[in-house]
Amino acid sequence: MAEEKHLRDMRTVWWQEDARGEAVCMIDQLLLPGQIVFLTLTHEQQVAEAITTLKVRGAPAIGVTAAFGMALALYRLLHEQGETLTLVEAQEHLRAASEMFRRTRPTAVNLQWAIERMLHRAKQAINERCSLPHLAQVLRDEAQSIANEDFQACLNMGRYGAELIADGDILLTHCNAGSLATAGWGTALAPMYVAHRAGKCLHVYVDETRPVLQGARLTAWELQQEGIPLTLITDSMAGYFMRHGGIKAIFVGADRIAANGDVANKIGTYSIAVLAQAHSIPFYVVAPRSTIDLKLSSGEQIPIEQRQPDEITHMHGVEIAPAGIDVANPAFDVTPYSYVTAIITEAGIARPPYNESLRELCLGYHDTERQADN
Amino acid sequence: MAEEKHLRDMRTVWWQEDARGEAVCMIDQLLLPGQIVFLTLTHEQQVAEAITTLKVRGAPAIGVTAAFGMALALYRLLHEQGETLTLVEAQEHLRAASEMFRRTRPTAVNLQWAIERMLHRAKQAINERCSLPHLAQVLRDEAQSIANEDFQACLNMGRYGAELIADGDILLTHCNAGSLATAGWGTALAPMYVAHRAGKCLHVYVDETRPVLQGARLTAWELQQEGIPLTLITDSMAGYFMRHGGIKAIFVGADRIAANGDVANKIGTYSIAVLAQAHSIPFYVVAPRSTIDLKLSSGEQIPIEQRQPDEITHMHGVEIAPAGIDVANPAFDVTPYSYVTAIITEAGIARPPYNESLRELCLGYHDTERQADN
Repeated sequence: MAEEKHLRDMRTVWWQEDARGEAVCMIDQLLLPGQIVFLTLTHEQQVAEAITTLKVRGAPAIGVTAAFGMALALYRLLHEQGETLTLVEAQEHLRAASEMFRRTRPTAVNLQWAIERMLHRAKQAINERCSLPHLAQVLRDEAQSIANEDFQACLNMGRYGAELIADGDILLTHCNAGSLATAGWGTALAPMYVAHRAGKCLHVYVDETRPVLQGARLTAWELQQEGIPLTLITDSMAGYFMRHGGIKAIFVGADRIAANGDVANKIGTYSIAVLAQAHSIPFYVVAPRSTIDLKLSSGEQIPIEQRQPDEITHMHGVEIAPAGIDVANPAFDVTPYSYVTAIITEAGIARPPYNESLRELCLGYHDTERQADN
Repeated sequence: MAEEKHLRDMRTVWWQEDARGEAVCMIDQLLLPGQIVFLTLTHEQQVAEAITTLKVRGAPAIGVTAAFGMALALYRLLHEQGETLTLVEAQEHLRAASEMFRRTRPTAVNLQWAIERMLHRAKQAINERCSLPHLAQVLRDEAQSIANEDFQACLNMGRYGAELIADGDILLTHCNAGSLATAGWGTALAPMYVAHRAGKCLHVYVDETRPVLQGARLTAWELQQEGIPLTLITDSMAGYFMRHGGIKAIFVGADRIAANGDVANKIGTYSIAVLAQAHSIPFYVVAPRSTIDLKLSSGEQIPIEQRQPDEITHMHGVEIAPAGIDVANPAFDVTPYSYVTAIITEAGIARPPYNESLRELCLGYHDTERQADN
């Protein structure tokens, strides 16, 4: 089956184009690990809905998904309106689609970055007075480039990160920053994959990651598929196993990193970082440069998405808390740079002081517009 | 309804004796908060099973329950065998029942303590050549005394602990150390109840406490019943709200406390204690002296119960993790004394150095046999 090949290649979101038309395809992560269901989405609103409802999640993966979604938006309009469509209308349509995708998840910078890049590429092509079918192809190619670059970036992060892993190491990770969270290979899990494929023995403690259980459902599944030994634990056990389990290093991903090295990531990451420091365990953040937001001087400026209470009060439709109580559900927290041992990117490993090392790693990477803003 | 009166009086386990015979009654905590179901148990094996399956839980509550269970064991045998029963057979039956109750939960010292006390009282009565019906009454009275003493002890802990709570304080608790966990009032929640009833405004962050969700199911329910404002959070959010939520103090219970002040309590307590210290937030343990095990010089000697993996991998019968993976499920962890700001008992507040303060508080409390062992 074609879809299964995508999985073997560690691709979890892809573009499909055949006689029936264009579509954005992905594995429905909400149904993992119980069911492996592939979605074929032919309308950009379906793609946006897949992001909002966490059918696809992980900062790099949703950037790639939104980019494909914007290309899909134009293909769909072209099919519907044909030759009556004008470049001005197409541009307005893309702008509206970009606003829709921007609203899906507020914290991840990759999403904003991917949308900006797609709009920028569209503007270039429109300025060159290209035809509408050509514009659609240009956008599809740009989205594919974003996907391919992310895939390669993850592999590079894996290679850099694997150097920090010794044979026999016991590691801990939180949430899912694996191949499912990216165009492939993952961020926090990429060093484990590379180390494992290089023959190093590993054992990974996997936090289940309440409330959405990305660790139990996705990371445990990914590591199991790859044959890496793991132990699933509740989030509350991380401290216990740091004290008693011989954990040698923590690897987590990031949703946004400020210029000073403050890291926004899945709620619970901050607690783990504090615990890691208390146990003198290195705390590594693995993220592509697209996650780094040099415009933000510190993590205090990162907006934190507040999600619905029922993610906590209900489990598979069953109420697990009394009705009518107050619930807090911040989806992310910010780990101050002082807890971060190193930030592993596709261009190398940044170490403190991050104000210097991150800026250096990002030199020439972010587009001129963004650099000018800094 | 008689059962509801028990709840209003904060009694969650009680002895019932009517024309139908004797029974140990309790609220089924596994069904809370969705359903309020009262169990009427007429066989000591049912009582032991209720402890093992967490229908009743909380160190003091299971001590009280086991004590009632041992009295029930004798009443049941008396009804079955009548006048043919000998004192020797009764003693052997009680010994067997005590072994069964001992095996239900290995970590809680109150359980062992309550069983010892029942056996000791039985031995006294047998030495006095009392009749078997009288022996049964003696055991029932002894169990009722354990319950009443625990009830009064909780109220006293509440009074001592409430002095540490100021009007307007924001607090955090983990698991359920409330009235449901004791004969009444609770341990960690007792200071909140006393402070609230004295007119102090409180707000309590409640950790949901995976895997069994005692916080979401029981503590949130108890506080809601009492009208104390609360916010339910996942365990992984504790650090976030210590940093951002203005939390002034942590109150937790204990399952066993060593002579040096090391505290065994629900898994996740250790992580919270480390986080509390990192945020300079006082970390208070509230527990009766029956929880203090002066025979143990440190917490390293406390046995940690390992529970079934399906508590983590399944939720209401739905599998939430891939089949066949390794899972760790320690039910408790040990928080070293250096993280504990104070230990609040029914006889006063112990502060470091605990080797001295705990021994002082326990002087004359533990029975001669146990003191002799130290």
